[in-house]
Amino acid sequence: MIPTIKNLKQTDAGNFFLMAGPCAIESETMAMEIAEKVVAITDKLKIPYIFKGSYRKANRSRIDSFTGIGDEKALKILKKVNETYNIPVVTDIHTADEAAMAAEYVDVLQIPAFLCRQTDILVAAAKTGKVVNIKKGQFLSADAMQFAVNKVRESGNNNIALTERGTTFGYQDLVVDYRGIPVMKEMNVPVVLDITHSLQQPNQASGVTGGKPELIETVARAGIAVGADGIFIETHPNPAEAKSDGANMLQLDLLEQLLTKLVLLKQTVNQLG
Amino acid sequence: MIPTIKNLKQTDAGNFFLMAGPCAIESETMAMEIAEKVVAITDKLKIPYIFKGSYRKANRSRIDSFTGIGDEKALKILKKVNETYNIPVVTDIHTADEAAMAAEYVDVLQIPAFLCRQTDILVAAAKTGKVVNIKKGQFLSADAMQFAVNKVRESGNNNIALTERGTTFGYQDLVVDYRGIPVMKEMNVPVVLDITHSLQQPNQASGVTGGKPELIETVARAGIAVGADGIFIETHPNPAEAKSDGANMLQLDLLEQLLTKLVLLKQTVNQLG
Amino acid sequence: MIPTIKNLKQTDAGNFFLMAGPCAIESETMAMEIAEKVVAITDKLKIPYIFKGSYRKANRSRIDSFTGIGDEKALKILKKVNETYNIPVVTDIHTADEAAMAAEYVDVLQIPAFLCRQTDILVAAAKTGKVVNIKKGQFLSADAMQFAVNKVRESGNNNIALTERGTTFGYQDLVVDYRGIPVMKEMNVPVVLDITHSLQQPNQASGVTGGKPELIETVARAGIAVGADGIFIETHPNPAEAKSDGANMLQLDLLEQLLTKLVLLKQTVNQLG
Amino acid sequence: MIPTIKNLKQTDAGNFFLMAGPCAIESETMAMEIAEKVVAITDKLKIPYIFKGSYRKANRSRIDSFTGIGDEKALKILKKVNETYNIPVVTDIHTADEAAMAAEYVDVLQIPAFLCRQTDILVAAAKTGKVVNIKKGQFLSADAMQFAVNKVRESGNNNIALTERGTTFGYQDLVVDYRGIPVMKEMNVPVVLDITHSLQQPNQASGVTGGKPELIETVARAGIAVGADGIFIETHPNPAEAKSDGANMLQLDLLEQLLTKLVLLKQTVNQLG
Repeated sequence: MIPTIKNLKQTDAGNFFLMAGPCAIESETMAMEIAEKVVAITDKLKIPYIFKGSYRKANRSRIDSFTGIGDEKALKILKKVNETYNIPVVTDIHTADEAAMAAEYVDVLQIPAFLCRQTDILVAAAKTGKVVNIKKGQFLSADAMQFAVNKVRESGNNNIALTERGTTFGYQDLVVDYRGIPVMKEMNVPVVLDITHSLQQPNQASGVTGGKPELIETVARAGIAVGADGIFIETHPNPAEAKSDGANMLQLDLLEQLLTKLVLLKQTVNQLG
Repeated sequence: MIPTIKNLKQTDAGNFFLMAGPCAIESETMAMEIAEKVVAITDKLKIPYIFKGSYRKANRSRIDSFTGIGDEKALKILKKVNETYNIPVVTDIHTADEAAMAAEYVDVLQIPAFLCRQTDILVAAAKTGKVVNIKKGQFLSADAMQFAVNKVRESGNNNIALTERGTTFGYQDLVVDYRGIPVMKEMNVPVVLDITHSLQQPNQASGVTGGKPELIETVARAGIAVGADGIFIETHPNPAEAKSDGANMLQLDLLEQLLTKLVLLKQTVNQLG
Repeated sequence: MIPTIKNLKQTDAGNFFLMAGPCAIESETMAMEIAEKVVAITDKLKIPYIFKGSYRKANRSRIDSFTGIGDEKALKILKKVNETYNIPVVTDIHTADEAAMAAEYVDVLQIPAFLCRQTDILVAAAKTGKVVNIKKGQFLSADAMQFAVNKVRESGNNNIALTERGTTFGYQDLVVDYRGIPVMKEMNVPVVLDITHSLQQPNQASGVTGGKPELIETVARAGIAVGADGIFIETHPNPAEAKSDGANMLQLDLLEQLLTKLVLLKQTVNQLG
Repeated sequence: MIPTIKNLKQTDAGNFFLMAGPCAIESETMAMEIAEKVVAITDKLKIPYIFKGSYRKANRSRIDSFTGIGDEKALKILKKVNETYNIPVVTDIHTADEAAMAAEYVDVLQIPAFLCRQTDILVAAAKTGKVVNIKKGQFLSADAMQFAVNKVRESGNNNIALTERGTTFGYQDLVVDYRGIPVMKEMNVPVVLDITHSLQQPNQASGVTGGKPELIETVARAGIAVGADGIFIETHPNPAEAKSDGANMLQLDLLEQLLTKLVLLKQTVNQLG
């Protein structure tokens, strides 16, 4: 199941869709560079593509962490990516007030996992008419996401996606429970697997999150195999220099190889019914 | 360690402090009835007492859950409790915008566990100058709360409390990790144990949270024994009729007996050093 | 990677291998019926097949649970399956003493998850020269299995397999952490995914383990996708009548359809490198 | 509730009982030195005391770990401690065969947590007529221990204790769920809290378990507060030189101070009813 979004291409190709981009919008140059490369790859592989970028990071561990280059500036860059490449864009919001503001610039509003039970935000996002992509809280089962879906539907918006991004597993680790993907698909929404955040390993002592990027392909393969409709992945030309979440972002040069494998796997999965 | 709050009585009695009241403010009559009874008990037992009540429930599972009687109406009731009984009051906020509004009515602003990493809310709460009581996220270790504390301190407010309310343990359960209480006390803040929410057992299928109220005394005793500075407990004349969180609230008639035991235990704990 | 076992067929077919059979050997008739059907399916699908059956259930919750039909009787049935169908057989052992006894009848000795750290059992199993299949304890990480592997290797036996069967996730649930499969493959042993036990949901109140058999295909697909070398599955003509573990066994009539899908997936996975 | 054991002193003192000693019996000199000191302390504090020592370590991570000085040699030392100080002794067994052998030397047979579901061992231990102390598996809820208790009772032995030693919490940590202590007391058996192993933090990479010995007092205080009948603690004159489990053993010189505090706490807990 692919969400209905204007400008989303290749929706008949029988492929998974991709939400990808940098963690945060660091600059126009960087955003455009990433978009250009990912557009080229996804055109070639016939993958419906939504550009992803956060205009603000609202829940960093530390107050001195990078939080963004300014809301309006970043949102305008997202809009420029949208117009330049004719592709939809997604960003995350953190309060009900931000919903209407962000909706002027983007096609998909994403609700962060920590905030997925905040009724005001869900309702405000729903009322923009945009696609609402809700991340599953690390503290919730897949079943429990039915209530988040209902809050959006009952606010008159049925254009919803759910995203798995790992579940709390002790203090220092997250685990992806793949049983949740078919459970959420039963809710008649596209289900996305967020590879990047599923691999986080919160380093509670330092406040800097670590990860295991060598497992990106493993996590993604299992997701496609169990029927994920979409893949979310943060990518950067040089993850080591990224201003946030560098630990788990995929190096942009490695994206094509990964997606090529996943497309092959998806074609087989389509045959399994 | 007891927080510094105008009107907080019995602060030299060597006792734990108490945050108690109904889950949500359902009516003035109910709020005043609970306050009157708890004031009488805590005066008798020399327990510093802060009246607790939510003016809005922002993160219910279901959109049709009870969310409140209206923000301003509920906040005015909190103020009336404060003025009538000359006791401090605490309520929880859900966005940065609510901080200044709520601060006009209450003495302590509480940050919900799901929101404890939202920098904007922590900073806005800090700037009111009120005591900021931050609940530990169910997905966080005690160590990680240092970053939340720092966000408030670096915003110029050193009047902070931390509250343990259980940690995610599978999908259907929470567990209190008592090792976290001395860890948080090392941050030089009063540490509160929230008995009521520590006993939640999220029923993911129905969206109605269950619990084990028969374990209230067990959870509380262990907290006092390991050095908790405060106890948070929701109480109601008739929990079965409460409009939210009825499953784990303590029946008001049972409060004095519980507190009497905890005071006795606290006196011994004070001798242990 | 396929283990080296006499009589194991189709080892060059580029397929995963299968360990399958009833939970416990209930009777010769039943064992032979299952073996015959699974041999027919695996011959057709070119899957290397090892017949599985426990001769004794040593760790039931309740003392009145079914534990077996007698050790020697059951072991002789395993031998008869081996001789009749010319296929290897596997069973689990529970003490060091059982290793030599069981080794007279079977080709693979399996070490139960609860016992995977018992040095005496591992060493005794190793010394039989049989393949030693060690199940990962529900309380252990994949990394930790290196020590179990070393205990067998240092006892002079390098014919080892490791089996993932889920990790403790709260009291009532297990979760498969697929990151562990590539981790264990790094130890240069075949890695098996035990579908049946990965889906257990211990019902602690009743002492009868439940499950979610509708998720069998999901769990298996993800395992093949991430590179599992083998699949372990308990199957029974009528799981509802099985004397142990009925909750998660696959109905025998459904096995061919499942394996057909997994073979198709495996062929694609082989291309991914 | 105190178990019925010949030679167990001070059983009317209203105190908790203590199981303490080194992790493993390293030498007669060391065992006698520890016993002498702990006897002096527990006589002074009126604590019923059972000397603890393992004669073999059967589940070390690594095959090159210290496993003991020889079974018979170690068991004879336990017997000598028993006779010299006129105190009961406890040791752990790892197979059904060891039950009768160990029972000739000790008063209490302890079943390791990993083995608490092995019916054969429980039944063999029960049949010796000795007290059977069953450790709760790290993968089990307190409720589930009813089945282990029943296995011993149905074998004709009602002299049983249960010991909490932490529950799996992610791969690198254990958490004590104090709710389990009253749950197990409902089974009409003495319930012990094992402080030492509750503080283990399995270091999965190195195979050497770490810990947090600074939290010993915290874990113990909470246990006494919620009604634990006994405390299990490993102690050594110099934990850094101990041949096993050094990370969490209490330095022998610190034992009296800890027990003095716990006795004071226990006296208050007795008053709470």
